[in-house]
Amino acid sequence: MRILSGIQPSGKLHVGNYLGAMKQHLDLQDKGEAFYFIADLHALTTVKEPQALRDHIRDVALDYLALGLDPQKCTFYRQSDIHQVPELAWILTTVTPMGLLERCHSYKDKVAKGIPADHGLFAYPVLMAADILIVDSNVVPVGKDQKQHVEVTRDIAGRFNNLYQSEVFVIPEDRILPEAGVVPGIDGQKMSKSYGNAIDIFLEGKALKERVFSVVTDSAPVDAPKDPDSNNVFNLLKLFVSAEEQAEWRDRFLAGGLKYSDAKKRLLQVLDETFGPARERRKELAKDKDYVEGVLRAGAARVEPIAATTLARARRACGID
Amino acid sequence: MRILSGIQPSGKLHVGNYLGAMKQHLDLQDKGEAFYFIADLHALTTVKEPQALRDHIRDVALDYLALGLDPQKCTFYRQSDIHQVPELAWILTTVTPMGLLERCHSYKDKVAKGIPADHGLFAYPVLMAADILIVDSNVVPVGKDQKQHVEVTRDIAGRFNNLYQSEVFVIPEDRILPEAGVVPGIDGQKMSKSYGNAIDIFLEGKALKERVFSVVTDSAPVDAPKDPDSNNVFNLLKLFVSAEEQAEWRDRFLAGGLKYSDAKKRLLQVLDETFGPARERRKELAKDKDYVEGVLRAGAARVEPIAATTLARARRACGID
Repeated sequence: MRILSGIQPSGKLHVGNYLGAMKQHLDLQDKGEAFYFIADLHALTTVKEPQALRDHIRDVALDYLALGLDPQKCTFYRQSDIHQVPELAWILTTVTPMGLLERCHSYKDKVAKGIPADHGLFAYPVLMAADILIVDSNVVPVGKDQKQHVEVTRDIAGRFNNLYQSEVFVIPEDRILPEAGVVPGIDGQKMSKSYGNAIDIFLEGKALKERVFSVVTDSAPVDAPKDPDSNNVFNLLKLFVSAEEQAEWRDRFLAGGLKYSDAKKRLLQVLDETFGPARERRKELAKDKDYVEGVLRAGAARVEPIAATTLARARRACGID
Repeated sequence: MRILSGIQPSGKLHVGNYLGAMKQHLDLQDKGEAFYFIADLHALTTVKEPQALRDHIRDVALDYLALGLDPQKCTFYRQSDIHQVPELAWILTTVTPMGLLERCHSYKDKVAKGIPADHGLFAYPVLMAADILIVDSNVVPVGKDQKQHVEVTRDIAGRFNNLYQSEVFVIPEDRILPEAGVVPGIDGQKMSKSYGNAIDIFLEGKALKERVFSVVTDSAPVDAPKDPDSNNVFNLLKLFVSAEEQAEWRDRFLAGGLKYSDAKKRLLQVLDETFGPARERRKELAKDKDYVEGVLRAGAARVEPIAATTLARARRACGID
């Protein structure tokens, strides 16, 4: 089973990203032949500052590697290193009805949010189809919001196979990532970089402590019983502790006598326990300026022959061999 | 001065194609550094039959080579051999506003004619921009109907240079090909493959004679004076003969006593004079199965380092180096 997933290089990763996707990516390394790529060609649709893009690419690679992505177990590469991807995207584009792209809500949503309506945003699902099809992916783990794009890929691949009476493309399945539940930010809204309420994975020491202690709580007196389920500290804590510990904290909230600062201290501690080793590992990996580049190039070298084979099949089928 | 033009591999070429574009292409070989490519990636938007596409590519290459395209003087290549073209097209697509493509009348015209509204047709001007920019073209000779696409290229190139504060792309100029005048088909309408009224360049012998003798004329008696300007034979003849001979024929039409078959005989003769040597040359070239492939591969080898340099500049500017 070949698993494919793209990773957006769009800045510092936070705890919500970890629970929402990264953890699943790391787990899936052991479940099949995993292909993970840094989607820098996609990022060009929104990141228009070259040095920021370069930094994001390196940062996201270091983040994943530090958290346990193992380039021996999975194939980790950079989208723009595989020239067959945009080549295949053009071929696919010639069998993609406009209506299929016009119906994609992701484009409409982005434009509604004020992102300029560039053709790159519109054509994005075709490039994503090329990413998926070029390595004969069987399974594409995605969040709910990306499910439609996998359906577009299936549709395009089916159309091509059908039009050219061939079996050029493997038809992929989506696998919707289990919902992590809502991960609250420090203000209780969904954690999101754009809301400015995130706790970054690689934040540490005093800066992390300040961040954790700024998680918004109410001003109930210490003695009062407190509702855990509407409390941001509890809602963050429960994502990291055992069921037993979660039950203990629930009881302490309900019983009264709890100081929020005690819960925050424990939250800080579990964040340090969960991410501390990765932070140290990241510092080590970052020392070697060439490490990330070496990993990504080795990944590309593994992908290249697969991509070349798929592209050759597609070219032969449509007559440009 | 670098001149670029794309050649559509869309079937047999006729006398109207020759006078409308091919002749100018052949002349321009001596006016600058000419780059001519067979636009097979573009052709995929309309030719969905692989063997037909393969045949068209070979045929159009043989046609041009037989008519005098000299692969020593110009660079003659196949679009799909240059993987940097679709790579650059993706980069360009991320700086192309949807509105720019939505305004292109060529897409709207094609859809209005009943061609399915595929994304390839819509995205066509971005691929054309990549074709033009990848070899740093200065001049793009086009028919009036393609002028807008060169403007789109200038717009995209300017946006990229401006956004990334770079001079990555040479801004090309269009050069509108002089109108050949209307070339009538055998029925007097504009000569067009789709009207079924064309005289193919490489038609010869009995088949060509039949075609020329089926040029529609009126049933005026031999003795009657005839209007040359409304006569299809005269209007075809005048495209090939000298000014002196044209004047002679005009006089003969006006004087009366002219048999249309005499004018048709002369038309057949000038077609044989004009295209006869090319027909023989084409037969010679076609004998060597590998000749066309060799020419196109040699052309691609010349383009590749130029394309690689341009793409590297573009990637560096936007941060995916």
